[in-house]
Amino acid sequence: MNSGIGNNIRLSVFGESHGVAIGCLLEGLPSGVKIDYESVLAQMARRAPGKDKTATTRSEADIPEIISGIVEGVTTGAPLAIIIKNSDTRSHNYNNIKDNPRPSHSDFAAAVKYGGNNDIRGGGHFSGRLTAPIVAAGAICRQILKQKGITVGGHISQIGTVADTPFDPVNVSANELDNLSKKFFALNNLDCEEPMRNEVEQARLGLDSVGGMVELAAVGLPVGLGNPMFSGVENVVANMLYGIPAVKGVSFGAGFGYASMKGSVANDQMYFADDGTVKCYTNNCGGITGGITNGMPLIVSVAVKPTPSIAKEQKTVNLKTGENSTLQIEGRHDPCIVPRALPVLEAALSVALLDLLVKGDRV
Amino acid sequence: MNSGIGNNIRLSVFGESHGVAIGCLLEGLPSGVKIDYESVLAQMARRAPGKDKTATTRSEADIPEIISGIVEGVTTGAPLAIIIKNSDTRSHNYNNIKDNPRPSHSDFAAAVKYGGNNDIRGGGHFSGRLTAPIVAAGAICRQILKQKGITVGGHISQIGTVADTPFDPVNVSANELDNLSKKFFALNNLDCEEPMRNEVEQARLGLDSVGGMVELAAVGLPVGLGNPMFSGVENVVANMLYGIPAVKGVSFGAGFGYASMKGSVANDQMYFADDGTVKCYTNNCGGITGGITNGMPLIVSVAVKPTPSIAKEQKTVNLKTGENSTLQIEGRHDPCIVPRALPVLEAALSVALLDLLVKGDRV
Amino acid sequence: MNSGIGNNIRLSVFGESHGVAIGCLLEGLPSGVKIDYESVLAQMARRAPGKDKTATTRSEADIPEIISGIVEGVTTGAPLAIIIKNSDTRSHNYNNIKDNPRPSHSDFAAAVKYGGNNDIRGGGHFSGRLTAPIVAAGAICRQILKQKGITVGGHISQIGTVADTPFDPVNVSANELDNLSKKFFALNNLDCEEPMRNEVEQARLGLDSVGGMVELAAVGLPVGLGNPMFSGVENVVANMLYGIPAVKGVSFGAGFGYASMKGSVANDQMYFADDGTVKCYTNNCGGITGGITNGMPLIVSVAVKPTPSIAKEQKTVNLKTGENSTLQIEGRHDPCIVPRALPVLEAALSVALLDLLVKGDRV
Amino acid sequence: MNSGIGNNIRLSVFGESHGVAIGCLLEGLPSGVKIDYESVLAQMARRAPGKDKTATTRSEADIPEIISGIVEGVTTGAPLAIIIKNSDTRSHNYNNIKDNPRPSHSDFAAAVKYGGNNDIRGGGHFSGRLTAPIVAAGAICRQILKQKGITVGGHISQIGTVADTPFDPVNVSANELDNLSKKFFALNNLDCEEPMRNEVEQARLGLDSVGGMVELAAVGLPVGLGNPMFSGVENVVANMLYGIPAVKGVSFGAGFGYASMKGSVANDQMYFADDGTVKCYTNNCGGITGGITNGMPLIVSVAVKPTPSIAKEQKTVNLKTGENSTLQIEGRHDPCIVPRALPVLEAALSVALLDLLVKGDRV
Repeated sequence: MNSGIGNNIRLSVFGESHGVAIGCLLEGLPSGVKIDYESVLAQMARRAPGKDKTATTRSEADIPEIISGIVEGVTTGAPLAIIIKNSDTRSHNYNNIKDNPRPSHSDFAAAVKYGGNNDIRGGGHFSGRLTAPIVAAGAICRQILKQKGITVGGHISQIGTVADTPFDPVNVSANELDNLSKKFFALNNLDCEEPMRNEVEQARLGLDSVGGMVELAAVGLPVGLGNPMFSGVENVVANMLYGIPAVKGVSFGAGFGYASMKGSVANDQMYFADDGTVKCYTNNCGGITGGITNGMPLIVSVAVKPTPSIAKEQKTVNLKTGENSTLQIEGRHDPCIVPRALPVLEAALSVALLDLLVKGDRV
Repeated sequence: MNSGIGNNIRLSVFGESHGVAIGCLLEGLPSGVKIDYESVLAQMARRAPGKDKTATTRSEADIPEIISGIVEGVTTGAPLAIIIKNSDTRSHNYNNIKDNPRPSHSDFAAAVKYGGNNDIRGGGHFSGRLTAPIVAAGAICRQILKQKGITVGGHISQIGTVADTPFDPVNVSANELDNLSKKFFALNNLDCEEPMRNEVEQARLGLDSVGGMVELAAVGLPVGLGNPMFSGVENVVANMLYGIPAVKGVSFGAGFGYASMKGSVANDQMYFADDGTVKCYTNNCGGITGGITNGMPLIVSVAVKPTPSIAKEQKTVNLKTGENSTLQIEGRHDPCIVPRALPVLEAALSVALLDLLVKGDRV
Repeated sequence: MNSGIGNNIRLSVFGESHGVAIGCLLEGLPSGVKIDYESVLAQMARRAPGKDKTATTRSEADIPEIISGIVEGVTTGAPLAIIIKNSDTRSHNYNNIKDNPRPSHSDFAAAVKYGGNNDIRGGGHFSGRLTAPIVAAGAICRQILKQKGITVGGHISQIGTVADTPFDPVNVSANELDNLSKKFFALNNLDCEEPMRNEVEQARLGLDSVGGMVELAAVGLPVGLGNPMFSGVENVVANMLYGIPAVKGVSFGAGFGYASMKGSVANDQMYFADDGTVKCYTNNCGGITGGITNGMPLIVSVAVKPTPSIAKEQKTVNLKTGENSTLQIEGRHDPCIVPRALPVLEAALSVALLDLLVKGDRV
Repeated sequence: MNSGIGNNIRLSVFGESHGVAIGCLLEGLPSGVKIDYESVLAQMARRAPGKDKTATTRSEADIPEIISGIVEGVTTGAPLAIIIKNSDTRSHNYNNIKDNPRPSHSDFAAAVKYGGNNDIRGGGHFSGRLTAPIVAAGAICRQILKQKGITVGGHISQIGTVADTPFDPVNVSANELDNLSKKFFALNNLDCEEPMRNEVEQARLGLDSVGGMVELAAVGLPVGLGNPMFSGVENVVANMLYGIPAVKGVSFGAGFGYASMKGSVANDQMYFADDGTVKCYTNNCGGITGGITNGMPLIVSVAVKPTPSIAKEQKTVNLKTGENSTLQIEGRHDPCIVPRALPVLEAALSVALLDLLVKGDRV
């Protein structure tokens, strides 16, 4: 098992939900870049559990300790390691799961793959908690992107049956994205918050959970990032985003909407803007043609499945007895993971984009 | 620019549409595997142009010459190189494009990235023609998978507004997939062929093109392929599929449908089948939990955008004069790329799955 | 900058000499392997400073804390992270060096490469101290190798002008290697210890340092590890060993001695041993032919340059004033790094061999 | 099995000695670089067999056909594929070897590793003939290096007991290296040619072979190439050079000579040269400190073992009968591979240095 990704920027994640600590390693960062620690904490806070009825009541301080790679707030160019101590662990809640794997969790597949040796407590290395170091790493990458004129952001585009207004793929602005990046329940249309929260609350009261979607954007990307074929922007970004638990779909621009479109409508026709740059009238391609950025905003949609940990009784198998069984999952769980997944996905996108941007040494 | 992918199996694609030849390199194959060349040709034929009104009239023999890695029909374990000679090239059709980049093509982004040195003739390395060696490589990988009990297949799930019946994600069979893999216009519901062809014909007559979707499946996968986080089945497969031109969305199982689902419906509850294996009642997760195969069929959906090469006049920029201009694309183009994309996507999936399956030496 | 290596087993090292902590990440380990923590500490002790007149007087507890990847002494398969806290740091000793780079140190090259942002205190990420986590990682890999019948070991083959008896490349035994692995000043011929220590003491008294050589061996390797060309055993091992500071030469078997040999003498002729295995009468190839292990002991020689940190006055440049200058290096340094380099090189070899042995998932 | 290497520049070699063709793929090249094909042929000629009593009498045209990546003599940035057709193959000479593996050849190890499926004819993928595409690739990389002010060269530093004068590691010049690069029997001291040829002729007449050494150099490298630890210049170069068959030792600068040196002698003290650059009085470190170039010439020594294919009778095993046997190798072989290895090693070094120099996209 490994949990690393990237070529010019490499992110490696380690730790288990109920171990001593979790953390990550970020290699390939340029030297001499000033990093604002408060901004890292601000992104961590958006992901942190325990502050809202949509989320688990597990409470974690989630203070990322940077133990290498930064001296006096400036990157040295050396590998940057981050450690986050675990504190509020209640491992006794998970004893039943080893024998009775949770439906749509990794429990069964992991038990087979690792011969039962994987750490099952709190989901071990498969836990959503492992996204905390990704947020920290992403917050650092996002600052470096920002210094190069690139802004990353996103919003909750759907929860259950309620859909937020999508980004204007042509005109979405850095300002808009920056504002969204400060919010926990980030929406384009604030009127969606109440009906979305209602969907979550209904799920919670029904001992259930609910899925959703996130839409991400990045503006300010130079023309020419990415490659044809297997190292294009779509490949790199999708590979990264599928690393976030619960992600089951990733599409760019018009995405699956392309299926029913004619070429004459789908094609993004071009013109010279007043500043002499080449722009498109539309942005169905989501800022990428032939795997390469074309200077228009990058637009990505991500499907997030409902948290599989629900309190309702479910059918499963007992691996010990070899008989069918049922399971009621105890512990503290999120009725809807989407709001907390948003900053994680923004962070993951930031790491992927910096990996594409940095023309560095070998990683 | 590079066009390689994979860890245990590495596929590298090379060549330009109007160069001497195109081809690929396939590294990491196990030694001692019998390869049936006729089956390779059969897959090549499904992708080959010129045989149908849905496709370009360019005619290419597309005979893949295996120049290393196989002796007397058996893999040696050494890198397998495939060459496909180009023949029917008409480069004079493309002269106008260098100055007037085609909307939603890579032309503009590539011109910036490569300083105008990229081969523009026929799309150069960006051409859909570069998928021919992928089909050959995939046909070889697919045979190795088959020998290990794994069957890959797919169907055209949508063209324009017409949708085919989706796979039964729980019961889709090897037999069913094998039958589909022999067809050019592969469908679950044969009644869809006529209305789909109508959509394509309408597009063709309107000097336009139309998009669609492909649904892929693989059965017989052992439990335990893939990894948590960034090297999971979803990451590896999505990274590979986004390498195929025109792909703008990749989702697994219920995919974007998860967004409006409750956990109690979405979760795939488990039971012991009569043969003692663990099965799920549903397969919304598309055969993957926590990045790892769970023994259920792998289900992937792929969005394919309409071919951007249309004969209708379009607005673009003239990079030479610096003024807005218009373009009418000449040459021979596919009004709908979906039927020819299907065998390419099956091939790409086969390479990705073999990469996940083979526990080989370093590639 | 990155400090990672490996395909099936990936080792990533992080930290700076005078930072909070140093450590490493070890990915790709098989699950279910019992790890003896005491054996890890025993190897750490061989490298630890401060216990001998040949070494620096800096005193570090060097207790490796395993923060993930092991539960109840057994590997989970998840990434294994190790942290070693720094304690005895005296950074004021290094202030002069930033302006006046030390001859034959990385100071000058690193200052240029990282724009002066690299951590200069104690050598930062370039410090020999960064080999401590490699020893810990290697001790874990060595145990896994041992459980598969493979034994790694080595001896000080030269210090200054005094050379130890080389290994018998045909008959070197696991027993012999195990005994050497318990010693700090590991020699085949114990009579060499006194004259070697004399060379070191002379260097120390002369405010100087002295170089040497290490010979490594591994027995029990199966036939067939490694690949032709660029992923052979020699490539992988040399790539790893050159990661250890002060290494300036790596050779296999007869190595540079091959230059003056005839083929009839150099060739390792073969026979069937009594147990039916194929053996060679000689082992000039050091256990590797065509990049692949042939079942004979692996024999590697490593040249170690004298520690560049010497107290004698040396000529250097002042990067601040732009004028030539002189430097007398203060601080605590090793007059001879070879005895402490030995366990590091054994560890590095162990990681490389496990990387070659494990046919794992993607790392 | 794979035969690829590199991060920013990736070289993949394919083919078998007696197959249809051999070749290579070179990915990551910058676009817009003019390549002189005649210079490629000139380097091919230095490696080509059949022109000298030191070499095999096998005659091969060895014309590298560039089938992609170059249009009108200029790199496009797309993968560059090279094919070299095989012609003068006499496979009947090799039938005996499959059963009776040649001592110190890969035959036995490969037979075990690939289950007897590897192509044995002419050594298959293990043949020295596979170095021909490396020379072609290296000739291209060398031209790109040259355009950036970097010159690579080398000489035969030893054959048997005769040693050439080594490079002056401080003052070796581009001019000197360029002159050497035009010669087949490249020497610093021309008086060594006759005694060296005598050693080879003696070996040839005695149905034997003889080993040697090559010394390589590169001048004009900027300060700052390479990384600490595992991606340093030494790691990258050694990894590459060990990909050339017969290489059994690689050292940098003083190399194994460091073992008996004192630090005060070994250290390369520094000063400001008249042009303001930082230089060293000596260059024992061979131009690399801490894995990073320091602006002094890069100096590498390579040990080359005697060709194992000798006509003298040798002891081996018969894998079919399971009994000890003897073997007299027929066919055409080099009594001394060193002169032909020199251009191959220069080429390999060129690829490695370009890989370190290019800060490109993902490969």
